[in-house]
Amino acid sequence: MNLHEKCGVFGFRASEKRFTAQRDAAGICYTGLFALQHRGQESAGIMVTDGLHVDIEKGAGLMVDAFRARLPSLNGNCAIGHVRYSTFGGSSFANIQPMMAAIRGGGFIGLAHNGSLTNTDTLRRSLESRGCLFQSTSDSEMMLNMMAVSTATTVDGKILSGLESVEGAYSLVLTVGTGLLPDHGSVSLVGARDPHGFRPLCLGGLSDGSYVLASESCALDAVGAAFIRDVEPGEAVIIDDAGIRSLRLRHRPVKRAFCVFEYIYFARPDSVIDGLNVWQSRHRMGRRLAAEFDELKVQADVVVPVPDTGIAAALGFSTESGIPYAEGLIKNRYVGRTFILPEQAARKSTVEMKLNPLRENLKGKRVVMIDDSIVRGTTSARIVGLLRAAGASEVHMCVSSPPITHPCYYGIDTSIRKELIASYMSENDVRQEIGADTLHYLTLPGLLESVGDPEGQRMCVSCFNGYYPTDVSEVSEPKRSLF
Amino acid sequence: MNLHEKCGVFGFRASEKRFTAQRDAAGICYTGLFALQHRGQESAGIMVTDGLHVDIEKGAGLMVDAFRARLPSLNGNCAIGHVRYSTFGGSSFANIQPMMAAIRGGGFIGLAHNGSLTNTDTLRRSLESRGCLFQSTSDSEMMLNMMAVSTATTVDGKILSGLESVEGAYSLVLTVGTGLLPDHGSVSLVGARDPHGFRPLCLGGLSDGSYVLASESCALDAVGAAFIRDVEPGEAVIIDDAGIRSLRLRHRPVKRAFCVFEYIYFARPDSVIDGLNVWQSRHRMGRRLAAEFDELKVQADVVVPVPDTGIAAALGFSTESGIPYAEGLIKNRYVGRTFILPEQAARKSTVEMKLNPLRENLKGKRVVMIDDSIVRGTTSARIVGLLRAAGASEVHMCVSSPPITHPCYYGIDTSIRKELIASYMSENDVRQEIGADTLHYLTLPGLLESVGDPEGQRMCVSCFNGYYPTDVSEVSEPKRSLF
Amino acid sequence: MNLHEKCGVFGFRASEKRFTAQRDAAGICYTGLFALQHRGQESAGIMVTDGLHVDIEKGAGLMVDAFRARLPSLNGNCAIGHVRYSTFGGSSFANIQPMMAAIRGGGFIGLAHNGSLTNTDTLRRSLESRGCLFQSTSDSEMMLNMMAVSTATTVDGKILSGLESVEGAYSLVLTVGTGLLPDHGSVSLVGARDPHGFRPLCLGGLSDGSYVLASESCALDAVGAAFIRDVEPGEAVIIDDAGIRSLRLRHRPVKRAFCVFEYIYFARPDSVIDGLNVWQSRHRMGRRLAAEFDELKVQADVVVPVPDTGIAAALGFSTESGIPYAEGLIKNRYVGRTFILPEQAARKSTVEMKLNPLRENLKGKRVVMIDDSIVRGTTSARIVGLLRAAGASEVHMCVSSPPITHPCYYGIDTSIRKELIASYMSENDVRQEIGADTLHYLTLPGLLESVGDPEGQRMCVSCFNGYYPTDVSEVSEPKRSLF
Amino acid sequence: MNLHEKCGVFGFRASEKRFTAQRDAAGICYTGLFALQHRGQESAGIMVTDGLHVDIEKGAGLMVDAFRARLPSLNGNCAIGHVRYSTFGGSSFANIQPMMAAIRGGGFIGLAHNGSLTNTDTLRRSLESRGCLFQSTSDSEMMLNMMAVSTATTVDGKILSGLESVEGAYSLVLTVGTGLLPDHGSVSLVGARDPHGFRPLCLGGLSDGSYVLASESCALDAVGAAFIRDVEPGEAVIIDDAGIRSLRLRHRPVKRAFCVFEYIYFARPDSVIDGLNVWQSRHRMGRRLAAEFDELKVQADVVVPVPDTGIAAALGFSTESGIPYAEGLIKNRYVGRTFILPEQAARKSTVEMKLNPLRENLKGKRVVMIDDSIVRGTTSARIVGLLRAAGASEVHMCVSSPPITHPCYYGIDTSIRKELIASYMSENDVRQEIGADTLHYLTLPGLLESVGDPEGQRMCVSCFNGYYPTDVSEVSEPKRSLF
Repeated sequence: MNLHEKCGVFGFRASEKRFTAQRDAAGICYTGLFALQHRGQESAGIMVTDGLHVDIEKGAGLMVDAFRARLPSLNGNCAIGHVRYSTFGGSSFANIQPMMAAIRGGGFIGLAHNGSLTNTDTLRRSLESRGCLFQSTSDSEMMLNMMAVSTATTVDGKILSGLESVEGAYSLVLTVGTGLLPDHGSVSLVGARDPHGFRPLCLGGLSDGSYVLASESCALDAVGAAFIRDVEPGEAVIIDDAGIRSLRLRHRPVKRAFCVFEYIYFARPDSVIDGLNVWQSRHRMGRRLAAEFDELKVQADVVVPVPDTGIAAALGFSTESGIPYAEGLIKNRYVGRTFILPEQAARKSTVEMKLNPLRENLKGKRVVMIDDSIVRGTTSARIVGLLRAAGASEVHMCVSSPPITHPCYYGIDTSIRKELIASYMSENDVRQEIGADTLHYLTLPGLLESVGDPEGQRMCVSCFNGYYPTDVSEVSEPKRSLF
Repeated sequence: MNLHEKCGVFGFRASEKRFTAQRDAAGICYTGLFALQHRGQESAGIMVTDGLHVDIEKGAGLMVDAFRARLPSLNGNCAIGHVRYSTFGGSSFANIQPMMAAIRGGGFIGLAHNGSLTNTDTLRRSLESRGCLFQSTSDSEMMLNMMAVSTATTVDGKILSGLESVEGAYSLVLTVGTGLLPDHGSVSLVGARDPHGFRPLCLGGLSDGSYVLASESCALDAVGAAFIRDVEPGEAVIIDDAGIRSLRLRHRPVKRAFCVFEYIYFARPDSVIDGLNVWQSRHRMGRRLAAEFDELKVQADVVVPVPDTGIAAALGFSTESGIPYAEGLIKNRYVGRTFILPEQAARKSTVEMKLNPLRENLKGKRVVMIDDSIVRGTTSARIVGLLRAAGASEVHMCVSSPPITHPCYYGIDTSIRKELIASYMSENDVRQEIGADTLHYLTLPGLLESVGDPEGQRMCVSCFNGYYPTDVSEVSEPKRSLF
Repeated sequence: MNLHEKCGVFGFRASEKRFTAQRDAAGICYTGLFALQHRGQESAGIMVTDGLHVDIEKGAGLMVDAFRARLPSLNGNCAIGHVRYSTFGGSSFANIQPMMAAIRGGGFIGLAHNGSLTNTDTLRRSLESRGCLFQSTSDSEMMLNMMAVSTATTVDGKILSGLESVEGAYSLVLTVGTGLLPDHGSVSLVGARDPHGFRPLCLGGLSDGSYVLASESCALDAVGAAFIRDVEPGEAVIIDDAGIRSLRLRHRPVKRAFCVFEYIYFARPDSVIDGLNVWQSRHRMGRRLAAEFDELKVQADVVVPVPDTGIAAALGFSTESGIPYAEGLIKNRYVGRTFILPEQAARKSTVEMKLNPLRENLKGKRVVMIDDSIVRGTTSARIVGLLRAAGASEVHMCVSSPPITHPCYYGIDTSIRKELIASYMSENDVRQEIGADTLHYLTLPGLLESVGDPEGQRMCVSCFNGYYPTDVSEVSEPKRSLF
Repeated sequence: MNLHEKCGVFGFRASEKRFTAQRDAAGICYTGLFALQHRGQESAGIMVTDGLHVDIEKGAGLMVDAFRARLPSLNGNCAIGHVRYSTFGGSSFANIQPMMAAIRGGGFIGLAHNGSLTNTDTLRRSLESRGCLFQSTSDSEMMLNMMAVSTATTVDGKILSGLESVEGAYSLVLTVGTGLLPDHGSVSLVGARDPHGFRPLCLGGLSDGSYVLASESCALDAVGAAFIRDVEPGEAVIIDDAGIRSLRLRHRPVKRAFCVFEYIYFARPDSVIDGLNVWQSRHRMGRRLAAEFDELKVQADVVVPVPDTGIAAALGFSTESGIPYAEGLIKNRYVGRTFILPEQAARKSTVEMKLNPLRENLKGKRVVMIDDSIVRGTTSARIVGLLRAAGASEVHMCVSSPPITHPCYYGIDTSIRKELIASYMSENDVRQEIGADTLHYLTLPGLLESVGDPEGQRMCVSCFNGYYPTDVSEVSEPKRSLF
């Protein structure tokens, strides 16, 4: 699949004990963010602060390219970082994170945002009514400004005031510096999630009393932090010299709505979200898929995944169906930066540069191919073609999620409906388009059971059924082609 | 495992039909070499020629870095390329390939070499006796010089004369340019393998009559070439305007001795060598391992591979033993260029940056961990440690090859015996050193059966038993620390 | 000469009219700073702000390398920039500018500093007594902190309070952002000079009402700004929405002490400082030198400058003495980044890579060679050697400044006395050391007259006579070898 | 002025004594070429050989960028190098030098070419008639091929045969490798100049018996070589193990025709060509100019050069006229790579980024401004504008060469007549166009006397009078816009 979520976030605040011993906030942030690289490969930024001074370094590309030997040089005790999928051309301030603003009445605030707001028109009007004139602005910048203009007199008040004014999806890592006196440059690290809890965010701790916030638990592992818990929907966690405390956003009661695509596709398989490991959720999807399409048992000789996201589901499918599992497509691990291949190199499709069929596991076989989802259908068609060219006698495509029929307004790159093949084609037409012998989607109930939410109380599945947990009237207009 | 073979080679010669239509020899060579990137990440080079002119581009690092937008610009009809593991500091001419020499009596020859020669002292003396004084020289350069000084008057004669003077391991891709008149710059592409056939080399064809040579068949797939056959041990294949022909090296009868480590570790799983697919050979090794250690069936709950080379063997082990297979270690796909991480980033071991345990598949479980081999033992020890820290109650390490007790003199980076843990420790001491509960190596007969050579007629297994197919007295002295 | 001053500073604040029309603060700052590149080639930084948000970009090397296509992307109305001579290894926060701090009670302050403070121990104690614990800190950072901790409630108050606490040499460009409300992110640009006025700083204006501050007037020319006036010693100029105003630092009466080396060597010849053009001051030095050593008239055939700083003085010398002027040393304009020459390039001295004698103007001639100063003497010795090798029959070295006998504590890289050849050798020994036939220094009275300060009321000449305008007891200890 | 000649060439051949002691051919070549950087800033290449092996490294941009740490790594005893003005988009093989070809009957030849051939159609036909089919080819490549196809059996024969077939302008550095036996890889370094001697080429020697060839003598100085003599028009100098020998091209008698623009503009002032130093020739042009326009003596207050090429002429003008010389335009020495300024930097004209008027030397003055030539007139107009804006009361432009009325077909970038302002405008119209009060060109007789050729026996002045020394009918067609 080729959905693109826009980012991963990470935050670190050293305990006083650690800070006295070593000055490695930037390095810790780099290491943690590196474990989130799969959430964004187009740009990266790290901001380090000691509450008084600020140092920011940002760059384009993978982290190794964006930073080379240039991490921020400030020896601060707090660092936040961001990786994002898209640079939007690189010229607009609004799209580079972390971003920073001065707070009236003291200090500054730095922000890294994963998600997408849905009341941007309202926010714009609100900011304008206070005398702020923005020509162009991103939703992340608006949220930052709402905190900066808050008349609250405490850090907590400003954070809450800002968050309570916005709607939509956000998992945030913030850092607030107070200025030098009377707090001698004290700095807070803040993690916050919207009341629906669309995007993940978890909290971890190091044995020396330092705290970590990250989009996924695999980043806690990367820096040797123990998982403490997920930040709750509608919660802001504040970490400062006084320790850690939890604030609750005031908001009308809302349904929890965690993006089920984190389990299906985005998150790393070794991450744990809301108590459920991602790999195991995918394995369950595969088992369920096999159970729902029991007839495939007698129709197929081998189950092969589209690597890497299809692996766990394919293993589950094999376990449930008894059909042997095998690797059928080998991934060239050096692709991923093909955009800088010398121009003269033969122009091959990315799919073909990336995946090569393992003929011996496919030839003359009836193949069940497992992928996580179908968006436009073009990638699936190419892969089915590869399998057939390698000699597969039949290709049965099984998808570990339902048809995507509706755009996402909460941070995933599918906001144009006409690009969703399942939104305008029947299942049989899709099958023909991609060239498979049969096509099977996991049912929505099957998916929800696989992620431990059989009643659909906690998940956002709007891309499958069109029921959006928030008012999306301000954002559901056709977007510009950049999106 | 961390064995390092020194290179991958690729060659392309456009048919006249293709050359008339498009001038993409450099691009084809780049694409093919890119599929061989796993055989060498430290430097890369491409040489393009039309038989008269020559253009060479070389660089350090991965191919994307080595070439950036600088492929050779010559519109030749023939290109050869090379990727290598080690740069040896980058300053010595001898270590940069392809390398080129003028041939007395007409034209030039370019060479890309995979392997290691074993009669270098003899060669040096021979060249010196002809009046060539070399201060320092690599074995590849010596071989090139032996061709260049040949008094043979034909391309075929020069190639054979050069090859027949060398001993050891070589799979070569050569290009010979004749100069302009009377041949108007005709160019030959040559592939050659030593009589033992230590290293792989295969031949492919495009539908337009163009030919391809590559270390592995996956590179043929990458450029859309059909596999024709392996180049035979002791054969030189010559492709020129007249078509393709095969020459036989004159040599005393020798045993075939294909490096079994190509199956165990080096080659890409989608490659086919000598009619045997690499993935399937590994699957068989895993099955055989399970059969040999039948007692593990009742002792373990889960089989996990060390990715990526252990995957096929672990699947085989699971199939044979009935113990469920699961992913237990998730690989960060963005590592591999960690050497350019900003200096200030936390200094973590490469193993820990690269692999994160998938706790939910390991916790409280008796784990069979499958790796392809053990060299120094340090990596294995770290991985066992990761599994235990993730909650594995027992770790049974199964290795899909026998203990490595002897150095390799044919192109693999294990030429210092004291770095081979199995050469100086008992199996039980190795087990203790790496911290596993039990340790099981595949037997040599088991390995040979897995690769379809039960009698050991075709494989080189000298690193397991010390029986070297060639005289290694000239090279078995302790080498410098660089090796 | 090879003295190195540590930096050049530049600031720009767009008028509302300009800001409405174009968003080019970063570009203007780049262009202005580019004209100051001669004041620092080792690193560069630009900070852009709109009073609320901040964006900083810094890098090593020449500006073209430090910024490549990465100017700060914020569309702010105010920008400040800095070029510096030395990076000190690049790892310490203290050495990268502009630097930024949050101000208690509102907003932030950014600072770019040219000069060197002399009461750093006192400042450290003062900051520590207020509860600030700094392990390592630069003088620039201390100054920034003194402003940030100020309890003054206005921008003016904070600036003055900070400046009045420091002693030594500083020409500063500052930007102060107030935060969003009630000022809607208003931003001030501030220029300030210490009461002695050691370093230059001037003010310019664009026709659209925008203001510019720069180390030298040549940077005003570069951005099309008209010169308004020099910032006065002991003055802070504040530019904000209300226009421009001038503050006076409260301080005990002090002597003006402008660094005379700005005229001798540092400043670009097209700059005007305190009403005196730099080129013309050098021309006068040359005339005076000729007058002081009248006997040379009959002893020499040609006057040649050491380019580029010696040109104006050599022309003056020629005018006064009547000895013809000629170019005798041609400078390779592509040197200056020799530190990145490929390692294998022949190791030649920088002097020889940079200067080639013009033999035809030297051969058989009695040469008067004009240089601006002698520091260690090694460069002079090499140049005299070049002239002799080119056939000069006699070399009379004339220096357009007196012997440097004392270290500088105000921002010039001569703070180790033992590196000053004139501090430990007699004039005749120096002459012998550099191999000249005769050696003539401009007298101190001659220098002072040349810069229009015959009574020495306005210039700092401490490096020539050891009379320091400020107490230097805190800084006159031997410094580390890095200096 | 903005004429652009296409290149500089350099060659080095180590004596056996030197080669035994050190392996620095690439480094020597780099150092020498670096002194020729003014002849080409767009790309650079170095080829190193030992007669058998070849290593080539090429790149775009200034030498520091083109080579970074990648000089050719071959320890050969011979190296040739090339810098060129234009890359022509970088994609065409034909435009990258040195270029190399295999010679039928032994070895290879490498070529670096300064100049432009005029019988390219004839050459193409000749090559085609021998069976060579070239789709696209440069004149340099044709010349290389003519040598490669030669049926001569000796190096000397091939070189002469190739050279005698071409017409037009060439100063060449060649290297010929013979292959290994029987010559054990002997290598020749060859320098050759066309019979007219359009472009310069000189020969130098090191004390250890090594030889050097270079476009200009300043490059000999750079590597510590003594000037031996200019290579003669119609001569090829061959340096090999046997020492140095001279060959004469057979050709009909032709007039010598050295490009007078080398003296006027291209060459570095410290170079000596045909016994005449470039700086002194320019000084004479300035004196002559003053003599020819005697009336200016009373009309002007100051003489200012357009740096750097106008300096020597301006000094000569001042000497002759008695009008004081002063610097009036200060050059920013860091421009020259402005093409990589960050995009957002204010778009200023190159002239304005590069030159800043020195107001104090211009204000209220009647200024004689000396430039070397006028091509399109746009640069002159901008400079006159700068002088007036700086307060010059009158600007009298004096040009140290006659009006350029005809295109050059011998290697200078003025081959489109309509771009030559003097070819379609009267002198008075040109004056008006550039905005000067008066405009004075040096007369052709004046120029010829200044370069020591009063009768015009040795110089090519075709751009001033349209008398071309060779038949240009094959090349005088309008060229493509790339030129």
